[in-house]
Amino acid sequence: MPVGTQGSVKGLSPHELVETGVRIILANTYHLYLRPGHGIVDSLGGLHNFMSWQGPILTDSGGFQVYSLSRLRDISEDGVHFQSHLDGSRHFIGPKEAMEIQEALGADIIMTFDECVPYPADHEYVLSAVERTTRWADMCLQHKKRNDQALFGIVQGGMYPDLREKSARELVPMDFPGYALGGLSVGEDSETRHRVIEETIGFLPENKPVYLMGVGRPEDIIEAVIQGVDMFDCVMPTRNARNGTLFTSKGKISIKNARYADDKEPLDPACECYTCTHYSRAYLRHLFMARELLAYRLNTIHNLWFYMHLIEGLKTAIKKDQVEEYGRHFYRRQNQGGFK
Amino acid sequence: MPVGTQGSVKGLSPHELVETGVRIILANTYHLYLRPGHGIVDSLGGLHNFMSWQGPILTDSGGFQVYSLSRLRDISEDGVHFQSHLDGSRHFIGPKEAMEIQEALGADIIMTFDECVPYPADHEYVLSAVERTTRWADMCLQHKKRNDQALFGIVQGGMYPDLREKSARELVPMDFPGYALGGLSVGEDSETRHRVIEETIGFLPENKPVYLMGVGRPEDIIEAVIQGVDMFDCVMPTRNARNGTLFTSKGKISIKNARYADDKEPLDPACECYTCTHYSRAYLRHLFMARELLAYRLNTIHNLWFYMHLIEGLKTAIKKDQVEEYGRHFYRRQNQGGFK
Repeated sequence: MPVGTQGSVKGLSPHELVETGVRIILANTYHLYLRPGHGIVDSLGGLHNFMSWQGPILTDSGGFQVYSLSRLRDISEDGVHFQSHLDGSRHFIGPKEAMEIQEALGADIIMTFDECVPYPADHEYVLSAVERTTRWADMCLQHKKRNDQALFGIVQGGMYPDLREKSARELVPMDFPGYALGGLSVGEDSETRHRVIEETIGFLPENKPVYLMGVGRPEDIIEAVIQGVDMFDCVMPTRNARNGTLFTSKGKISIKNARYADDKEPLDPACECYTCTHYSRAYLRHLFMARELLAYRLNTIHNLWFYMHLIEGLKTAIKKDQVEEYGRHFYRRQNQGGFK
Repeated sequence: MPVGTQGSVKGLSPHELVETGVRIILANTYHLYLRPGHGIVDSLGGLHNFMSWQGPILTDSGGFQVYSLSRLRDISEDGVHFQSHLDGSRHFIGPKEAMEIQEALGADIIMTFDECVPYPADHEYVLSAVERTTRWADMCLQHKKRNDQALFGIVQGGMYPDLREKSARELVPMDFPGYALGGLSVGEDSETRHRVIEETIGFLPENKPVYLMGVGRPEDIIEAVIQGVDMFDCVMPTRNARNGTLFTSKGKISIKNARYADDKEPLDPACECYTCTHYSRAYLRHLFMARELLAYRLNTIHNLWFYMHLIEGLKTAIKKDQVEEYGRHFYRRQNQGGFK
C-alpha cells in the first residue's frame, strides 16, 4: 500500500516510514511537476535521491489532480490545458508529457495518463472518456523510453458495467505489467464501488497486480482484498492523523475529546507503534490542542502503523486462504465498542 | 543550554533531541499551567513521564509570560492577576503558586517568581521591582516543599548597575544553588547587555552556575561565556528553523532563496547532523516552499545541532582556557562569506 507524498510523507523521515512498516510510497506527479519541477528532481538524481527514500516509489500520472485541483481545464485529443492551483500559470499535460515527467521523476511504478470523469456522469460522456483513455494509454506506451519502470494501465468506465468491461478489454491486450481501477472513490457509495470492482476485475489478468486507486477505509480495503485487489493508496491514515482522528483495534477515536484529558493509557494498548509505546492519550491530546508539530507526527506514525499492520494481516490471511475470517475478526473488534 | 518547550520541542521526538546533542530542555510554566494544567501533568507522573523525556528539565517561573503574553495584569504584593491569552479566563500566580505549579510539573531546575520590568523603565520603577523580586524570592524559599528540585534565584535591576548590584547582594545570602540574570534580551542593544552582565556577574558566587535567560545569538552566547555565564536558553534555533533561517559554519542562510532551487549540496557541508547527511539544499527548499511538515523538523534538527555543536565547542575551549580564541575562530568563519 503506497503512502502518498508531495516530497515527504507528512512530517515523517524515511527512516521512520520504514520503522512504521511502510515499504512503498506514492508521489504526486502534478504537485512535483509544478513544484519543484521534474527537471530539478531529475538533476538531483530522481525522487529516490531527492527524498532520500531507498524503497520503491509509485507516481500517479497527474491526471487526477489536473481534473480535481487545477482551473480552466481544456481537454483536447493530445491532453489537457490547465492553470496551476498555486499561481494560475498555464500548463499542458497529455500522455506524452506524463511519460516525460514520470521518467524524469524516476519512480519504479508509473501510471498511464487517463481521463477522469466526474460522478455522476452520463453514459455517452463516460464512453468517450473510456475511448480517449484507451488512445492515451496507447500513446503512453509509444512515448515511454525507460525500460526500468513498470507502467500500469488504468481502467475507467464510471459506474457502467459495459464501459468497465470495454475499458478492461481494450487495455489488457496492451500487456501492461499491472492494472489500476481508476474513477472510484469519487463520491459513490460502498455498494456501488463493490459492484463495479466485481464487474471489472474478472476481465483483468489474474497473474498481474490490480491496484484500486484512492481507496480507502480499512473495511473498504478488506472487502476489496476479498474481491482480489492487490494494491491501494489513500490519504486516509495521514489526513485523519492531522485531524486528530486515530484508528485503533476497537474503532476510531477523536483525540480532541475532553475524556482523554487525563487518560494515562496509550492510544491503543494493543498497538506496538512508537507513539503507543511512549505516550499517553493525555499527552497526545495536549499536543493536538496546543497545535504542537509533534502531534501531527505522532498521530501519523500511529495511523500508518495501523494501516500497515492491517495490510500485513491481510497478506498473512491471503497465504492461509483466510481473508474472510480475518475480515470478520476485524469487524468484531471494531464494533465491540471503544475504549472505556 | 536548555531547549524550550510547551510540551514538545517543535516536532522533534526525545530520541531525536538526544541525537541532536540536546541534554536539557526548558518547559514554560505559564503555558503548561494554562494547558493541559499542572494537575494533569502531575497525575501523569510529572513532565518527564508526560513527555517521555529522561534527561533534565528546567521550568521557568511563569513570570515572564505572565508579563509578556497575558492581558489585564494587576500586580499586588502576593502576585499577579492576569487573563489567559488563550481564552481570557482569569488567573492568579504569585511566588507561592509558582512553587506549587513547578513542584507539580516536577522539573529538575525551577525558578523563583520575579517581577519583570519593561525596557526602558525609570529607576524608581525598577527599584520597586527589585525589592519585590527579593521579597518574592524569599517567599518561594518558604513555600518550596520538594527537596529534589534545584531552585535558582533571578537577579533583576534593569540596565541600572546599582540596582543589579542591590538585587544580587540581596539574593546571594539566600544561598540558591544557581543564579539567573533576568530582564535581559528585552530590546536592549548588545553593548548594554554586555555591560549589565559585566556589572552583575562579579556579585554572584563563582562556584554556582550563572544562567542568562532568553539569550541568544551565537555571538551573544560566546561573549557571555567569556564573561563567565554558564547556562542559556533561547527560541532562536527553533524559531529561525521554522522561518527557514538556518545557521551554518559560514553564517546564516535563508533556505527560501531561489538560488538553492537546484543546489545539490548539503545545507552545511561541514555539518554532521541528520539533515545535512541526508538531504540537499534543493530538497530543503522544496519542502519549505511546499510547507511540508518535514521542513520544520529537518530545519530544527539542523539548527539545534548547530547550537549544540557551538556549546560543545565552548565547553572544550573552557577546559583548555581558549574561549577567546574559539570566539575569534568562529567569527572569522562566519564572516568569510556564505556558500558560493
